[in-house]
Parts: sequence; structure tokens; C-alpha cells
Amino acid sequence: MNEHTTVDLNCDLGESFGAYQLGHDEAILPYVTSANIACGFHAGDPSVMKKTVRLALAQNVAIGAHPGFPDLVGFGRRDMAVSPEEVYDMVVYQIGALTAFVQAEGSQLHHVKPHGALYNMAAVNPGLAEAIAEAIYKVQPSSILYGLAGSELIHAGQRIGLRVAQEVFADRTYQANGTLTPRRFPNALITDQQTAVNQVLRMVKEGKVQTLYGKDITIQADTICLHGDGAHALEFARSLHQTLTQERITLKAMDII
Amino acid sequence: MNEHTTVDLNCDLGESFGAYQLGHDEAILPYVTSANIACGFHAGDPSVMKKTVRLALAQNVAIGAHPGFPDLVGFGRRDMAVSPEEVYDMVVYQIGALTAFVQAEGSQLHHVKPHGALYNMAAVNPGLAEAIAEAIYKVQPSSILYGLAGSELIHAGQRIGLRVAQEVFADRTYQANGTLTPRRFPNALITDQQTAVNQVLRMVKEGKVQTLYGKDITIQADTICLHGDGAHALEFARSLHQTLTQERITLKAMDII
Amino acid sequence: MNEHTTVDLNCDLGESFGAYQLGHDEAILPYVTSANIACGFHAGDPSVMKKTVRLALAQNVAIGAHPGFPDLVGFGRRDMAVSPEEVYDMVVYQIGALTAFVQAEGSQLHHVKPHGALYNMAAVNPGLAEAIAEAIYKVQPSSILYGLAGSELIHAGQRIGLRVAQEVFADRTYQANGTLTPRRFPNALITDQQTAVNQVLRMVKEGKVQTLYGKDITIQADTICLHGDGAHALEFARSLHQTLTQERITLKAMDII
Amino acid sequence: MNEHTTVDLNCDLGESFGAYQLGHDEAILPYVTSANIACGFHAGDPSVMKKTVRLALAQNVAIGAHPGFPDLVGFGRRDMAVSPEEVYDMVVYQIGALTAFVQAEGSQLHHVKPHGALYNMAAVNPGLAEAIAEAIYKVQPSSILYGLAGSELIHAGQRIGLRVAQEVFADRTYQANGTLTPRRFPNALITDQQTAVNQVLRMVKEGKVQTLYGKDITIQADTICLHGDGAHALEFARSLHQTLTQERITLKAMDII
Repeated sequence: MNEHTTVDLNCDLGESFGAYQLGHDEAILPYVTSANIACGFHAGDPSVMKKTVRLALAQNVAIGAHPGFPDLVGFGRRDMAVSPEEVYDMVVYQIGALTAFVQAEGSQLHHVKPHGALYNMAAVNPGLAEAIAEAIYKVQPSSILYGLAGSELIHAGQRIGLRVAQEVFADRTYQANGTLTPRRFPNALITDQQTAVNQVLRMVKEGKVQTLYGKDITIQADTICLHGDGAHALEFARSLHQTLTQERITLKAMDII
Repeated sequence: MNEHTTVDLNCDLGESFGAYQLGHDEAILPYVTSANIACGFHAGDPSVMKKTVRLALAQNVAIGAHPGFPDLVGFGRRDMAVSPEEVYDMVVYQIGALTAFVQAEGSQLHHVKPHGALYNMAAVNPGLAEAIAEAIYKVQPSSILYGLAGSELIHAGQRIGLRVAQEVFADRTYQANGTLTPRRFPNALITDQQTAVNQVLRMVKEGKVQTLYGKDITIQADTICLHGDGAHALEFARSLHQTLTQERITLKAMDII
Repeated sequence: MNEHTTVDLNCDLGESFGAYQLGHDEAILPYVTSANIACGFHAGDPSVMKKTVRLALAQNVAIGAHPGFPDLVGFGRRDMAVSPEEVYDMVVYQIGALTAFVQAEGSQLHHVKPHGALYNMAAVNPGLAEAIAEAIYKVQPSSILYGLAGSELIHAGQRIGLRVAQEVFADRTYQANGTLTPRRFPNALITDQQTAVNQVLRMVKEGKVQTLYGKDITIQADTICLHGDGAHALEFARSLHQTLTQERITLKAMDII
Repeated sequence: MNEHTTVDLNCDLGESFGAYQLGHDEAILPYVTSANIACGFHAGDPSVMKKTVRLALAQNVAIGAHPGFPDLVGFGRRDMAVSPEEVYDMVVYQIGALTAFVQAEGSQLHHVKPHGALYNMAAVNPGLAEAIAEAIYKVQPSSILYGLAGSELIHAGQRIGLRVAQEVFADRTYQANGTLTPRRFPNALITDQQTAVNQVLRMVKEGKVQTLYGKDITIQADTICLHGDGAHALEFARSLHQTLTQERITLKAMDII
């Protein structure tokens, strides 16, 4: 690795709905290079989408669609027994809805990252992963597919010919097979800020991560997921942004062709 | 008027939702030249939208978005006290969602026609009319705006620089000021099929319609609204289609630039 | 068994929504003794609920709540990864909503039968089964819990002290362990009407059913599920009703205490 | 008036939804004597309803249903062109849903107060007012109807035989005809806290309020509406609660028969 290493910092935005405010979009925007904007199924509404698109553009942050399950009360976090065809349909719909707001502002869609349970299910289910990749390919083939590094979703995107961004997590531990330790396990989360920053640095600079029982594995870190909720999240974003910059790592979203 | 007169026949399609079937889309498609497809707010869902787009393309029918109020239980037919900004947002969203399905099939959006209460409110409210026109102009400026002939919606479209299609009705009576007789009045509907066909013929060939109390007024008939529900509607569509063809009126959707 | 054998015939009703019609409620009502009325989550809306309650009362049919998942577009048929607490909450809510319409007409709720994926998940998941049983017990302890004969839902109801009605199916085959053959298997459905009637008769009169590979098992048939969709369903309901009556089996809903 | 004067302090609660938090329910509860709990249409969900009912009961606060329009994204604040029958149906449904949670906790429903646009429309529209009153009367005739003092809603409740609570506002100015000054006018709101407290004191103790141009009118103040949002609201609630107590005014919800 050399000094020209580049990485993207992404964050979920636009998760407010009607009278309900969620997240600190304006505060987190200066620290990220790409934004995943909710599309009205698990969060977000048309007015929030417009406002969030404008906020992101004003900060030169690349805009992605963040499609999720039609489960507002569950925030798209509950697995649903959907068919690949249903997933294709709901992803096409949500990509289109967000793209319209981006086009109305004279810009274009940069990427698509599935949300919550849809993201997790597509990471391990090839049929759902292909449905998502096909939806993007059919509607916005220049858009980049964001998915869990090394997952079925990444493989599906590569097979169909999409550019992909392999996503890594600062505050989650990895297992020997490259998957995240499930949240139900006690050691799933990295709560020490410095440990999290170090994990990111190593993933970005060396392409490696130490797994739970000590073994190193290879991992490709194209984009890092940041959280936009809570004072701690903001502080961590600021800290990570500063460290990466000091390390001469270029922070920018992938180019779209 | 001469033998080269052209008119468009449009119909609302894709109004099914989940397990719920509504309308006879496949039966009506052979008689229409453009289709207004529901976008998931007042009717329709992502799977219905995909299927309906494919059906319409297979019949060479021009595809339009049919955005409505977020009121599924009321089928978008209940007036809502929405602001112009809310209308802009919900129309951008719905145009985008439908456009994605059209693009995924390799085609492009032809027009936008607001649905139900949104159509009626925009016909008389300049602020809402402008919000709709602006939404189309920002997202799909090549698309044609369908609105009630002579209404505020048509005026708003013309002011912003959209192509517009003035819509007339076969089975509704007109008042001296060019508006439709409200449905709550006993003589609002034309139930005799021949009378309805004759009204259409005169609007298309002469640009005139006889109003309730006998006076003729000028009306521009770019597109005629057909209904897709019920055996009677299908029979009328067939009859009108046949008569217009016999009268050497060309049935086709407006070209988009 | 003797001539005084009694059984209940139940059917899902009130599944229309807004402008969408589903089922043939008025046609099926003469053949059933209890009705499971949708509560607005997977199907039904307040106006449909009121109308259906009135229809059922006019025919002296016992009224039950038919709570389902909040998944209108999926008709409550898609498994969702819900917690027992979420299930308790959604069942309490839906029982209450339907009960209000029943009370407004001067009657009282007779039973509760979960719908679709919620019914199937609760049949095998003790935690979800207990959540449903507890919801009924807390809100309407006199109501009867309908569940798949021999399932976890029946056991949970019995444990908490509810009256239960063990439900059997006329047109489904049974496996050696008493569960229904899943629909994905080719021999899951009984399509021959006479075979289906005979299966019901034997379950009601002898308390036995022949499973797929010939072995008889014991089954308790308190209530039989009829379908309200399609001409075939109506014809079958009529035929079964007639046969049971001829066999001097009393058709009536269980008494509530 | 004498020292035994009594008044109720009510507040809208349970307006969170899924992952979305709204209001400061636990902070405001010590200052109110009755709570209007959202029922899942304009705000609230089954889990929020259960939690809020438990919170209110723990503080001995009387629980009311707060039914609203089915417009979550608009928070029930947008007028909708609904029929009296639709209003009857949606109010029956929502009362029932909340009542179930109250009964599950061994308590009973105390009152019903329509929310937002439904409240405002019912204040001036006798047909909608009667529909609401009838819904309460049919489902929970012992419940008290809360409505704007002197409004059509109060009259409708009295005609059908319900107990009513006439509601007054601390922070709104009144017009000569007893209605609130619409929010679009500059002097609609009372922003000075002492002025607001004094207005309440006079309404409660003397049954009078000074209208915008100086004239006193008679007003019956059975219950005072407090807001649960924002630090200012909490501070005002505390201040009003303290002042009323010092003035020996008994703070309690009306008894239900």
C-alpha cells in the first residue's frame, strides 16, 4: 500500500419521516464522502428525500439509494420471507424514486446500498443478491453496488457487471470466514474508539483484519460504514476522518464511469 | 378539420394491489393508445407496476405515470389539504418510481397524468397545478402533461414549457365555463352510448362541445379518457375505437420530442 | 361417536380493502357457523369491518377476529421475523379494533384466529404461540382460540386457560406427525371434492385422518376451515354443509362461557 | 366560583412510532391528569400504545383514545374530505384498539379526544361531530368526549347523551365568537407564559376569557390542553400546575360514571 490509498466513508441519511426526526444529517455530512438515502419504505418520505438530496449535494457528497423492506414500523430491520422477484420490484421502485430527486437537482445517482434486513439477507442469499444486482443493472447500470465485503451481494454485482464497493465496519468484529460476528454475541461490537480506528486503518492500508480468535484474514475495504445517530457516532466520525486524513489516505467516493 | 385528425385514447391501468385485482388491463389495452399507470400511492405496487409496464409495451401503448395522493384506502379520491411543496415532492417521487420500471424495460416515460382528487384539485388550484408541472419539468421535461382541457393544470404546464395534452371526457356533460358538471348533479353523466360517441366525435373533429343548456363552447381534445372497469366500459371502448377509426381519425399518442 | 356430534364451519371474511373487493362474503355466509374477520393489517379496513360484522350478525354467524401481520401488499402471507412481544402487541391491537365494531352492534367477540404467516409460525413456535394466547387472555378471556389441531398454538391456549378450537382442513393432506403437508409438495392439496368431504366426515365422526403414507392418526376436529374465494369454494362449502347435515352432525360454533 | 373548583389537565401522548421518538411522555406525565393516546393512524403503533398505557396507569393518569386521520406522514394534521360514515368507522376502530390495551392492563377507557385535523373539522362540521359522538356512544358510552369548548363536537356529544369535557387552550387567543384565532394570523399564539397562565386562571375561576379586541365572553373550562413537546412546554406545564395548585384549584380528570 502507498500514500495514494483511497477510501470512501458512507453513512445512512434521510431517515426522518413526516413529523419524526431521526439522525443528525447536517452534522455528519462534513465527515462522509457518500450518503445512502432512505427511499420511503423503511424510512424517509418524499419531502425528506428532497431535502436530504439537497443537503448532500451542497456538501459534494455522492448520493446513493438506500432501499429497504416495506416495514416502516420495524424500520426495515425484520427479515421478511420475500421472493427474489419481489425484491427486484421493490428495489427498482425505490431506486427510481430517489433518482428522480437527484435528477431534479441536476445530478445523478452514484450508488445503491440495501438497508437493514435486506442488506443482511442479500449478503448470504444468492437469489436475493442477484435480484438486487439485476435491479440496479436494469435501471442505473453506472451506479455502484455497495455490499458487505466478500458477501454474496458483492459476488452477484460482479457477475452481472456492476462496479461494486466492498463495505467494512469500524465497530464490528469479524469471524474467521469473513462475516461479521452477529450482534447477539457479546463480542460483536468494538466499543473502544481507538481499537475501531486501528481496525479501519489496517483494513484500508494492509487489506487485512484480525478475526475474533486472532487469525488475520484478507478483506477489501472500499467503503467504511459510519453511523449518524448519537453524539458518540459524530465524535467517532470526526476522529476517524481526522486519522485517515493524517495518514494521507484520500477520502473520496468511487468514481462512476 | 380534415381527415388527418389525430387523437389519443388514454386509460388508467395498473390499479391492482397485492392480492387485490382491479380493472381489466389486458382487455382494455387493445383499444387505447396511452396508459396511465398507478405509482403505489393511491393504487398499484412495485410488482403490479412492472407487470403493467410490460403489458403496455407489448401492445405499443405509450406509458405515463399516474401519481395520486397517499391514500390507498380512499383510492386517492378524497381531497387532502396538501401544500404545493408536498405535491411537488409526491409527484417527483411517483414519477421516478414508475420511470425506473419503464427504463428497466428499455423504454421511456411518455406522459404524466395526476389521479383522482389530485387531478381535480390541480384543475382549479394554480399553486398545486404549478407544483405538478414543475415536478415533471424537473424530472422528465420531455414528458407530456395530461390535464383537464382548459384547466389550471394545462395552463401551468404551458407556462413552464411542457408539452400538454388537453383531456376530454366522453361520458361527462360540460358546463358553460368549460368545466365538467360535478358528479353530484343528476345530469353529470352521459349514459347513452351513442350520445357519448357523438360528443367525442364533435370535440375531436370540430373542437366544440354542447354544454348543458345548449350553448356550444370551444374545447381542445388531444386525448380522451376511457375507463377500464366493467363490461360496459370495455364495450364502450370498443365502440368508440371503431367509430373513430371509421371516421378516419388517427388514434395515436402524441409524439414526445 | 353418536348422532349428537357437533362441528363448526369457519371462513375468513372481510378481506376487502377500500376500492378493492375480495371474496364472496354474502354467498359463503349461509354455509358457515363462524367468521374470521380481517382487522386492517393484512386485509380489511374500518368500513369493511363494520359491514362484515353486520353481515355476519344478520346470519347468526359467530364473529372472530382474524389478526395478521402488518403487510397489506403481501396479504400477511410472508413470514416476518417478529418478536413475541411485537406479536402480543399487534394481536391486542387488532382484537380491540374488531371488538369495537362487534360491541357497537350489541354483540360480543366469539373467537380469535391468527391469519396466514402468523397462524403458520405460531403453529410451530411456542414463543409466538404464547404471545397470541396471552393477548387473547388479557383482552377477551372468554374468547375461543382457533388454531391448527394439535399445534403449539393450541397447546399455548390450553396452558393459559383459554377455550380452544382445533382446526382441521378438508382440502389438505396430513403427514404422519399431524402437520399439514406443505403446499410446495405435489400432494399437498386434495382436489377431488368427494375425497375432501370424506376426510372431513372421518375426522369429525371418528376423530381420525389417514396420513399420506396410509397410516391413521388421531385428530380433534372442532372447526373446519372453508374458503370464500371462487365458485369452486362456494360449491364445496354447499356440498360439505349438505353432507354434514345429512349425517346428522350439528353445525354450530362453540358456545362461549 | 369557589375554592372547590376543579379542572383537568390533558396532554397528547404516545406519539412515537417504531424507531421514531416524539415527545417527552415520562417528563410531562407528573403534570397532567388525563392523557390522550395516539391510536396508530396519525401516530403511535401497538407497542408504543401498550407502553404509554402502562406509563399513564403508573401515574394514575386517566387514559383517553386520541383517534386521527389515516395520514402518518402528515401526522393527521391535513384536512381530508372524509364522509361522516368514514369518520364513524375510523373512530370506532381506533377506540377499540386503544381500549384493548387499557383492558389488558385491568383498567378502562376514560375519554376520547379527536386529533388534529379531525378535531378541528369536527369543531365546525355537525355531520362529522355527530359521527364521532355516535362512535363513542356505541362503543364506550361511559367515556367522556373531549372537544373544543362551545364547538359542534361538544353539542353533538350532548345531544347523543355523552358526558363532555369542554377544552380550553392556555396559549391560544380567542375570537369574539368563541373560536380560536387561526394559526395563520399573527396574534394566534400567546407566547408570554404569565399571560397564558392568567388566561387559564380566569377561564377556570370565572368562566370567562378576553377575546382579541377586548370583549369578554363566557367559556366553560373543563379541561386544559397542554403540550408535551420541547423544554418550554414542560416548563409551562410545571408552572401552570404549580399556579393552579396554589390557587386551590383541584386538578383531576372528570369522573366516569
